[in-house]
Amino acid sequence: MDEKQRYDQGLTVRRAVLGDAHVDHTLTKRNDFNGEFQEFITRYAWGEIWTRDGLPRHTRSLITIAMLIALNREAELRMHLRAAFNNGVTRDEIKEVLMQSGIYCGLPAANAAFHLAEEVFEQM
Amino acid sequence: MDEKQRYDQGLTVRRAVLGDAHVDHTLTKRNDFNGEFQEFITRYAWGEIWTRDGLPRHTRSLITIAMLIALNREAELRMHLRAAFNNGVTRDEIKEVLMQSGIYCGLPAANAAFHLAEEVFEQM
Amino acid sequence: MDEKQRYDQGLTVRRAVLGDAHVDHTLTKRNDFNGEFQEFITRYAWGEIWTRDGLPRHTRSLITIAMLIALNREAELRMHLRAAFNNGVTRDEIKEVLMQSGIYCGLPAANAAFHLAEEVFEQM
Amino acid sequence: MDEKQRYDQGLTVRRAVLGDAHVDHTLTKRNDFNGEFQEFITRYAWGEIWTRDGLPRHTRSLITIAMLIALNREAELRMHLRAAFNNGVTRDEIKEVLMQSGIYCGLPAANAAFHLAEEVFEQM
Amino acid sequence: MDEKQRYDQGLTVRRAVLGDAHVDHTLTKRNDFNGEFQEFITRYAWGEIWTRDGLPRHTRSLITIAMLIALNREAELRMHLRAAFNNGVTRDEIKEVLMQSGIYCGLPAANAAFHLAEEVFEQM
Amino acid sequence: MDEKQRYDQGLTVRRAVLGDAHVDHTLTKRNDFNGEFQEFITRYAWGEIWTRDGLPRHTRSLITIAMLIALNREAELRMHLRAAFNNGVTRDEIKEVLMQSGIYCGLPAANAAFHLAEEVFEQM
Repeated sequence: MDEKQRYDQGLTVRRAVLGDAHVDHTLTKRNDFNGEFQEFITRYAWGEIWTRDGLPRHTRSLITIAMLIALNREAELRMHLRAAFNNGVTRDEIKEVLMQSGIYCGLPAANAAFHLAEEVFEQM
Repeated sequence: MDEKQRYDQGLTVRRAVLGDAHVDHTLTKRNDFNGEFQEFITRYAWGEIWTRDGLPRHTRSLITIAMLIALNREAELRMHLRAAFNNGVTRDEIKEVLMQSGIYCGLPAANAAFHLAEEVFEQM
Repeated sequence: MDEKQRYDQGLTVRRAVLGDAHVDHTLTKRNDFNGEFQEFITRYAWGEIWTRDGLPRHTRSLITIAMLIALNREAELRMHLRAAFNNGVTRDEIKEVLMQSGIYCGLPAANAAFHLAEEVFEQM
Repeated sequence: MDEKQRYDQGLTVRRAVLGDAHVDHTLTKRNDFNGEFQEFITRYAWGEIWTRDGLPRHTRSLITIAMLIALNREAELRMHLRAAFNNGVTRDEIKEVLMQSGIYCGLPAANAAFHLAEEVFEQM
Repeated sequence: MDEKQRYDQGLTVRRAVLGDAHVDHTLTKRNDFNGEFQEFITRYAWGEIWTRDGLPRHTRSLITIAMLIALNREAELRMHLRAAFNNGVTRDEIKEVLMQSGIYCGLPAANAAFHLAEEVFEQM
Repeated sequence: MDEKQRYDQGLTVRRAVLGDAHVDHTLTKRNDFNGEFQEFITRYAWGEIWTRDGLPRHTRSLITIAMLIALNREAELRMHLRAAFNNGVTRDEIKEVLMQSGIYCGLPAANAAFHLAEEVFEQM
């Protein structure tokens, strides 16, 4: 595949998962400093991984949320909690991932994720 | 629920997921030092969380693997890579979680998980 | 023990350590999404672990602070820095844990903990 | 070397790297709680490590930024992104470290670092 | 204080906590590559922090073990599990720290620490 | 750029940095499970990031080692400690990165890296 095609394919999935508003906002803030990184993640994360057939996007959302809780990356977790709904994930399924994170990642990780999720739900 | 019932319920799920051989081995190695911890995780991790209806065990395996890669906990990851097959997870689905971990947890995390998974597969 | 007793026992310790104001606030914010998690941590963390006799609560506060600095969990660290005083921990003992964290967790971890602790002390 | 000399030597490097404004601010906020820690890091981090000849300060800035991204320590990363310019690091070199962190530390780590760096650049 | 005195003071505490056998072994393996690091940790970790009066060594052992579980640093945890006995810590107190780590650091962290501790106890 | 070209370009850099022996070994172990991941990292990590002009490979080695110490990823750290020499890094420069990691990542991280580095040096 040509890298331009890869980018286009990635941008389509990225828009479907994160929403047009988010992606448009990111694109308008593109500059000399972050432009290559934005182009890189569109091809690398979205064009390669999120487009793979092996797992439904619904499951990819759940495992992404699981990883982000463990990694303690708040801004990205917030983004993927919101995006999960575009992939058909329900509030109750998110609750299950958070409950499960309590035993594997520890209660402070789960507790922070519950607070974050409630903030995200209120803003939607 | 009575805590004895909770324990029994947890032990049943633990056996179903980790296999009788693993659980029997753990029970025979129970002693003054680790006994309360073993009892504790059987009631809470297995009796409370893994018995919840909100997600199929197949999905719980995938999100557990996702968290363990991010947390860098090798022995536990090894155990859950093996256990995943008892929950109907396929080698190809594990591959997808590992590919996805590459972009979120970093390539060294994914690389280590690929090596570990291949070791586990060879021993099965 | 019955799980209702476990909950009651946990709630009593939780109130003693975190204070009535904090626990009442958490209980009034209980809802469909976080209710089961709140019930779970009251039994699991407070009813099981914090009620154990093997270490004084004073020591449990110090090791909890130590873990939270290492785990980089700010909100929970803030909560346990405040709670430590209810367990008889002094400002000078907290300083010692933070100094010790500098060599084991790295200076950025200790530095962040010093800033956080000073914020907590000012609010008390 | 005498520890007073070590402190003086450390303070000189600390001022050169972090800037007089930052160090003066820290010194005026010195109190019973944080004073020993401030004295400790001046000798330990600045007087011992940053004064070593084996690597130019320019390189020390880059590896410090690399570690702080991996460690997820935002306040310290912000400080060293700013300080890097005092060591002759350019915006483009910082971009390269951040791009490289995307593959080793994962995209959420790199993404957070890009946002943080842009905030720091705007404030300068 | 003169840095030679600091080193001597550190070496004394290091020997008391880690044992002569361990320290002698480390000193005989000193070379061009690791010598400055060994000298550095003797003065700072042992000569500065472990010699402080603010907490008994017994407590310092417990918080060090707590941090090392959270940080996932096996070799160092193994060393401090062994050293704890030189500071008067009992097997039962170690069990309590490990139980507490289960809820804060997650069950995989605690599980690994239980296995490690049993290995260390068997070798003693 | 075409993705086949990207792969070829990545393989060339990967060979230059990690050595032919390592890369040949990896290629012969390629199978259905790890093949796509190997192809993925060759194009992205090596074909995109390590080929960038913005930093010399010498510096890229140092920041990679810095990140891997912080991330606690032993196998990958071992690989990049060895590879660093192919990029012109000296043993003394590695020592400096490890000394610096002691203050930012904590002494257990640096201590483990010193042991690992000595093992790697002995095998070379």
